[in-house]
Amino acid sequence: MTKSNRKFAIGLDFGTNSVRALIVDIESGREIASVVDSYPSGDAGVLLDPKQPLLARQNPNDYITSFYRSVSGVIRQALDVKDAEFMPQNVVGIGVDTTGSTPIPVDRNGIALGLLPQFKNEPDAQAWLWKDHSSFAEATEITEKASRYQIKYLAQCGEKYSSEWFWSKILHCKRVNPNVFDAAYSWVELADFIPALMIGNTNPDTLPRGICTAGHKAMFHAQWNGLPSAEFLSSLDPDLVRLRDHFNSKTKTADQSAGQLCESVAAKVGLIPGIPVTAGTLDCHAGAVGAGIKPKTLVKIMGTSTCDVMIHPLAEPLSTIPGLCGIVPGSVMSGMYGIEAGQSGVGDIFNWFVKNMTPELFTKTTDIHNALSNEAQKLLPGESGLLALDWHNGNRTVLVDQLLTGLILGMTVHTTAPEIYRTLIEATAFGALTIINRLEEYGIRVDEVINCGGIAEKSPLTMQIYADVCNKPMKISRSAQTCALGSAILGTVAGGYYENVETAQQKMTGIKEKIYVPNSHAVAVYRRLYQLYHDLHDAFGRRENSHGLYHVMKELIDIRENVRNS
Amino acid sequence: MTKSNRKFAIGLDFGTNSVRALIVDIESGREIASVVDSYPSGDAGVLLDPKQPLLARQNPNDYITSFYRSVSGVIRQALDVKDAEFMPQNVVGIGVDTTGSTPIPVDRNGIALGLLPQFKNEPDAQAWLWKDHSSFAEATEITEKASRYQIKYLAQCGEKYSSEWFWSKILHCKRVNPNVFDAAYSWVELADFIPALMIGNTNPDTLPRGICTAGHKAMFHAQWNGLPSAEFLSSLDPDLVRLRDHFNSKTKTADQSAGQLCESVAAKVGLIPGIPVTAGTLDCHAGAVGAGIKPKTLVKIMGTSTCDVMIHPLAEPLSTIPGLCGIVPGSVMSGMYGIEAGQSGVGDIFNWFVKNMTPELFTKTTDIHNALSNEAQKLLPGESGLLALDWHNGNRTVLVDQLLTGLILGMTVHTTAPEIYRTLIEATAFGALTIINRLEEYGIRVDEVINCGGIAEKSPLTMQIYADVCNKPMKISRSAQTCALGSAILGTVAGGYYENVETAQQKMTGIKEKIYVPNSHAVAVYRRLYQLYHDLHDAFGRRENSHGLYHVMKELIDIRENVRNS
Repeated sequence: MTKSNRKFAIGLDFGTNSVRALIVDIESGREIASVVDSYPSGDAGVLLDPKQPLLARQNPNDYITSFYRSVSGVIRQALDVKDAEFMPQNVVGIGVDTTGSTPIPVDRNGIALGLLPQFKNEPDAQAWLWKDHSSFAEATEITEKASRYQIKYLAQCGEKYSSEWFWSKILHCKRVNPNVFDAAYSWVELADFIPALMIGNTNPDTLPRGICTAGHKAMFHAQWNGLPSAEFLSSLDPDLVRLRDHFNSKTKTADQSAGQLCESVAAKVGLIPGIPVTAGTLDCHAGAVGAGIKPKTLVKIMGTSTCDVMIHPLAEPLSTIPGLCGIVPGSVMSGMYGIEAGQSGVGDIFNWFVKNMTPELFTKTTDIHNALSNEAQKLLPGESGLLALDWHNGNRTVLVDQLLTGLILGMTVHTTAPEIYRTLIEATAFGALTIINRLEEYGIRVDEVINCGGIAEKSPLTMQIYADVCNKPMKISRSAQTCALGSAILGTVAGGYYENVETAQQKMTGIKEKIYVPNSHAVAVYRRLYQLYHDLHDAFGRRENSHGLYHVMKELIDIRENVRNS
Repeated sequence: MTKSNRKFAIGLDFGTNSVRALIVDIESGREIASVVDSYPSGDAGVLLDPKQPLLARQNPNDYITSFYRSVSGVIRQALDVKDAEFMPQNVVGIGVDTTGSTPIPVDRNGIALGLLPQFKNEPDAQAWLWKDHSSFAEATEITEKASRYQIKYLAQCGEKYSSEWFWSKILHCKRVNPNVFDAAYSWVELADFIPALMIGNTNPDTLPRGICTAGHKAMFHAQWNGLPSAEFLSSLDPDLVRLRDHFNSKTKTADQSAGQLCESVAAKVGLIPGIPVTAGTLDCHAGAVGAGIKPKTLVKIMGTSTCDVMIHPLAEPLSTIPGLCGIVPGSVMSGMYGIEAGQSGVGDIFNWFVKNMTPELFTKTTDIHNALSNEAQKLLPGESGLLALDWHNGNRTVLVDQLLTGLILGMTVHTTAPEIYRTLIEATAFGALTIINRLEEYGIRVDEVINCGGIAEKSPLTMQIYADVCNKPMKISRSAQTCALGSAILGTVAGGYYENVETAQQKMTGIKEKIYVPNSHAVAVYRRLYQLYHDLHDAFGRRENSHGLYHVMKELIDIRENVRNS
């Protein structure tokens, strides 16, 4: 093979069910090779417990297995693309993004407890996947205690601490499984676990921690010198305090290098040691970078759940925004606030319907979503008389309440499956609009929306409904692997090839030609329907504005839990 | 064949989809022959219009065809049962019950307009089936005008006139199809149409009209000398007034004879002319008789919809009961108030789910209801976390509002089809309890509940849930054809064989051995769930107690109708 000067970056995206590895030519932006490797364990990679529907764990060994398979696979694939001129020595950086908050209990050496023989079959010793909501009681407790504390730890994360997040999960583990808790020397976010593995430093005390997960999920902030105080943690549980000491407080942004690829890992995957590896970041933050985020552009990463990301210059004023998941300096890139919002269930809700409620008529095909969408798109907005709330997984923004549940109303004995399917899509679009409205109410103008992720790629019906409901054009990121691309972009900056993220984005990002433009008739009907969605949203979702129905979903869950545990 | 002294009665039950004809030995109560004949037209006998989901009509010729087929069939069958000793000359009476309010526009000779060549394909010229709700606007108008009128026409029917009823449908016809309205010399309830055919008097001016349909559906009451005044009808539409003159105001109770079987009909079916034929009654009132109704016993006729019937001695005080469909002296039997309540959708809702929402896993069997029930009965009350409103067909009692729609909430991404199926059953049980509570609040004690109809026969799961939700034992009528049996019983009284209904019931009715007894654990959970059902019921169903959500279902229908008609 002749020598080549072409330079490359690798992006690794650890999703809920699989890892995506991508190799990009960093001057042309061409994506020359990509591999998706599914986690081998559980139900599509997720360890479930039918008796505890809120529980969702992952086998930490899956991350390691899929890391090696996907990276060595993508390198072999790139080498086979003749005109790409890929050479392992021309990789300038590797970026890593993952789901989160997905904390993993580890021992003194940074070995995940789930990998130890004594904890192999113990669910609480595995990775606590972002969508594990079993810690809802602890989340409420943390919110209540933090709201009374002198330091306003929750001012930048919507005034509510979530059951999806770091401390809720750890505190819940302490309560339900002190044995695992005691065995855990520290807890490491998946976003930090992978770079630590790659650079060969898994020491919990010193391994680099990313600001993105620390800031958005663990109440880490420069304003109070890092993690919450020992006094505050002690008020939750005195045993939490020691974890504070096993956490490297020199956090890094994702465009900074966490260290260099170590020899043993490099050898196994077919790379050269010494390549800079970014500090890990959350998948949606990387996706925002890969989609071309800039101030006043909202990036929506649409998958099983949805992440909404914006950035805002640190130099400009920004108030706190109630109900948002987080506002963290540097969490997307240096020099900018990263602003995160999201919906707990989007694709998850559509998949639920396809799996559990779809009649035979629509299941005679390999793509049931497509079959339902074909019928659903023949319907006019409002024609079905149906309306739904998109809370099957709770509500992340703006209510920050995992103890909310789905609702659908308006059914007659003529209501069909495609009508309900469309209504569920519309409900998630109304949820999306609620977030946009909240951002704009607090001064963050949304001039452009760029979507990426599986649903943005695969469902024109969903994107058209979003355009009509939000009354904004919906653009689609050019890359089918936007999160992995974002990580690769961050890798070029961490590797010193590009000076900053903006420059790299100009070379490596873009949108698709097809833009979904709002239809004025649909916009008008959806404006009426949204008002009704909003009325239901507030009636069932807001204690203080409840019209007397706030208790209904709560009590149903209370009854359910009583019955299941009796 | 040797002579025999055994005596028989025939009961005819015109249901929504078919006619049942039954021959009973009136001393032993033995049901010796029965035939079910399905209406040949439309979707299981119902003429639908996908563009107007509220419309439901029937071809009047179906009634005639199915009458002849079922009666001649049941007589042939009875003659073949050797040990029954059936002889046509030993039939002492024939009873007739039908659905209603199912008014049929007829010409001067009593010929249904739908049978005339010029109206053959005109939906508005056919029979307007009870569950046709296209007249909702007219129902509201009649309610409003009646509430302001000096005579309190609605005092005995829950203060609300229904879109299912006689005058709503006729007024709607006038508004949407004056051509048909003008061609109609009179309108005849199906319950009167069949006896008229049998006795050979179809003259609209003189054919006997039953008090049951007249009283419950057409605001007919002795207190104001029959139908509403010309002045009142004129306030709705001056052209309604002439219909008043083509209505025999000497109404009859169903235990009275309307006349005698005429020669031509007798010859066609294989009977002797001259047999007394009862005045027609509503199917659920006949069912109440067949189930053994007596004061303080609630009879529930459970099918696609549910009818609840009680009786109360005329001699005892009885206040008006808001939200009940009707309190009519003599509508079940002489000497008693007939009290009617009901649920617009029960089996219809379960069938809707089976047809539209059931995944393949449960459709690999001939009995999908059974497959879903098998899984649903493994669930504990409250275990699913779900709650529904049973309003897919509106709400007949106690809200009397056809513009209400279904609702289900509490879904997660783990919610299964059997969970929803069970929740729909529970919702109808909560609806049933709401009716019982209303009766008892107004002094009608419910000491016993006897169920009959398809669901009572076929769904042990439903009956157990009803027992647990209502905290009352659920008994099942012995006869699988309780409505037809009730008509046969009424036939024995109209025919003069038994002196009164009570005496005939003692010989001819009974309950099954299996009684569904409340389970105290389930009762306790359902008490909590009912409170939540009640909260939703009032929030969405009662304008005056709405917590701000009464408008949601209304506006969805308004949007739906706007979109469909634009």
